[in-house]
Amino acid sequence: MTRHFADRLAAACRAKGNALCVGLDPRWELLPREVRANHAEATLTAAAAAYVEFCLRVLDVVAPLVPVVKVQSAFFEALGPAGMMAQQTVLHRARALGLIAILDGKRNDIAATAAAYADAAFAGTELAGRRLPIWQADALTINPYLGGDAVEPFLTGARAVGGGTFVLVRTSNAGAGLFQDLVSEGKPLYEHVAAAVGAWSSANLGLCGFGDVGAVVGATHPSELAALRQRLPHVIFLVPGYGAQGGSAADAAAAFRSDGLGAIVNSSRGIIAAFGVDDPDWEAAVDSATRAAIADLRTNTPMGNLAAAP
Amino acid sequence: MTRHFADRLAAACRAKGNALCVGLDPRWELLPREVRANHAEATLTAAAAAYVEFCLRVLDVVAPLVPVVKVQSAFFEALGPAGMMAQQTVLHRARALGLIAILDGKRNDIAATAAAYADAAFAGTELAGRRLPIWQADALTINPYLGGDAVEPFLTGARAVGGGTFVLVRTSNAGAGLFQDLVSEGKPLYEHVAAAVGAWSSANLGLCGFGDVGAVVGATHPSELAALRQRLPHVIFLVPGYGAQGGSAADAAAAFRSDGLGAIVNSSRGIIAAFGVDDPDWEAAVDSATRAAIADLRTNTPMGNLAAAP
Repeated sequence: MTRHFADRLAAACRAKGNALCVGLDPRWELLPREVRANHAEATLTAAAAAYVEFCLRVLDVVAPLVPVVKVQSAFFEALGPAGMMAQQTVLHRARALGLIAILDGKRNDIAATAAAYADAAFAGTELAGRRLPIWQADALTINPYLGGDAVEPFLTGARAVGGGTFVLVRTSNAGAGLFQDLVSEGKPLYEHVAAAVGAWSSANLGLCGFGDVGAVVGATHPSELAALRQRLPHVIFLVPGYGAQGGSAADAAAAFRSDGLGAIVNSSRGIIAAFGVDDPDWEAAVDSATRAAIADLRTNTPMGNLAAAP
Repeated sequence: MTRHFADRLAAACRAKGNALCVGLDPRWELLPREVRANHAEATLTAAAAAYVEFCLRVLDVVAPLVPVVKVQSAFFEALGPAGMMAQQTVLHRARALGLIAILDGKRNDIAATAAAYADAAFAGTELAGRRLPIWQADALTINPYLGGDAVEPFLTGARAVGGGTFVLVRTSNAGAGLFQDLVSEGKPLYEHVAAAVGAWSSANLGLCGFGDVGAVVGATHPSELAALRQRLPHVIFLVPGYGAQGGSAADAAAAFRSDGLGAIVNSSRGIIAAFGVDDPDWEAAVDSATRAAIADLRTNTPMGNLAAAP
C-alpha cells in the first residue's frame, strides 16, 4: 500500500530530528570555482554537468543531516534540455539517498494540460499502456490562480503515488501583497486560498493528522504565518524566506505545531552558497551551514521538540 | 534596433489577414496513427520524435495561413528531457517559418528565479559572458499571483529582445472564478490583475498602439471579455477557449479592436485533432480546419477588418 505523503514526511523529520529543507538552486556564477573548472567549456551541456556534480556533492553532504530537499526547476530549465536532464538526475539521486524531494516548479494549467504536468511530476507519462517515469518527485509546488478544477489534477496525481503538493498561499517576496492582500468578504485573497487548501487537504489526512496538500507561506510574513497555523491545523507549511531572504528562525517558529511537525523550512543560498567560490573546502562550509541552520531552528522554534536524530 | 513585440504581431496578423493562433498541444493518443507508427518503440525518445514529426508537419500546413502558434509546454515536459528537446525544435522551426511563437508555460517565481525562467524563454542564459539561446520564444504566458515584483523580471526579459508576455487574467476553465471572481474594492480579482496588466503594458507601447504585456482572457467568458476590451484599449488579448473548449467566434468577437487588431484567438484540439487518428489525409484535415476557423473568425468578429492576405 502506498504510504501517505504527510506520514512519510513526518517520519523523515523525526528520523533526522529536524525539518530543514535544503534548496538546490544552482547558478553558474555561485558554483565553487573547482566545480566550474571541471566543466569549463561554457556550453549548456558542460554547465548542466557542473550542476549535477555540484548538487550531487551537496546531496552527499546534507543527506545524513536533513529530511527534505527542494529542487528549483527554473535554474535547470535555464540550461534547456541538458538542464532538464540534470534536474532528473538530481531528483533521482535525492530519492535514492532517502530524501523527500520537492520539485519547485510552481506549475499551473487546466484539465488535461494540468494532468500532463502532474504525470511528469509524479506517476510518469503513459505511453502505449506503460507508465514511463519522468521527475518522480515526492511533491510539487503549484500556483492556485486558475481555481479548484485546475488544481485538482495535481492533487489527484500526487495522491495516486503517495506524493504531495504545496500550493502558493503567501509568497516570500516583498511585493507578494499586490494581489494576495486584496480583501474580499472580510479577508485577504491569500486567506481565501488558504481556506481552499485546508479543504483540499482535509480530503486525505495521514495517520500523523496532516493532509497531503500543503501551503507555501513565507517566513518573511511571520504574523500571517501564525494566523494561518491557527486556522489550518492539519496543513503542512513549506516555508521559504529563511536565511538569505531575511526571515529568522523566530519568524518561522509559528509555522510549526507544538510537537515540531507541520512545517518544513527551506534555506537555499544560505547553504548552497555558504562559501566563497574559491574555497577549496566548500563542502565543509555546506556541512557547517546546514548544521548551524538546524541548531538555530531547533533552539528557536518548536522543531526542537522533534526527537534529536538517533 | 529591436522591433516592438506588438508591432511584430500586428504586422504578422495583417500579412496573413487573420489573428488565429494554432495551439500545438501534442498528445500521444491523439496523434495520427501513421505518425505513431513511425516512432513505435513506446519510449520517451520515440514519443518525442513523434511530437516533433507531428508538430513540424502541422507547422508546414499552417505557416502559410496563420500568424501565430502557441506551444503548450506541459505536453513536452510530460516526455521529460527528450520532450524539452522536442519543444526546442518545434519553437525554432516555428520561428524559422516566420511565425510568432508563444511558449505557454504559465511560469511564475520571484527575483533571480523568475529571471532564470525569463532568460530561458527569451535572451538565453549567460555563461562565462556569452548568451546561450534556450527556447527563443517570441512570447511567454505568465501567472500573476506572486505580484508585481515577481512579474517584473519576465517583462524586462521579454522587452530586451522585442518579445512579449501574456499574463493570466481570466482563464477559460469552468472553475476559473473560485479566486478570480472574488470581489475586492468593488471589483473582482481578475479586474485588479487586468488593471495591473494595463499599467505594465502602458510602459512600452508599440507604434500600433498596443503594449508588449498582454492578457489571457478566455472566450468562455464573453461579457468579461467585452468589459476588459473597453477598459484596456492598448492591451493585446490572447483568447483561449475557442472551438473545442466551447467558445464561439461570436464569444471571441469582443476581444478585438474595431480594426481587427488587439486579439489573437487560439484553437488547439479544434485544429491539431481535427481528424480521426486513422485518417491518412490528416494534413488536409488540419488545413481545412484552419481555413474554416479563419473564415469563421473573419465572418463573425472584427478580424474581418484586417485586410485579407495578399
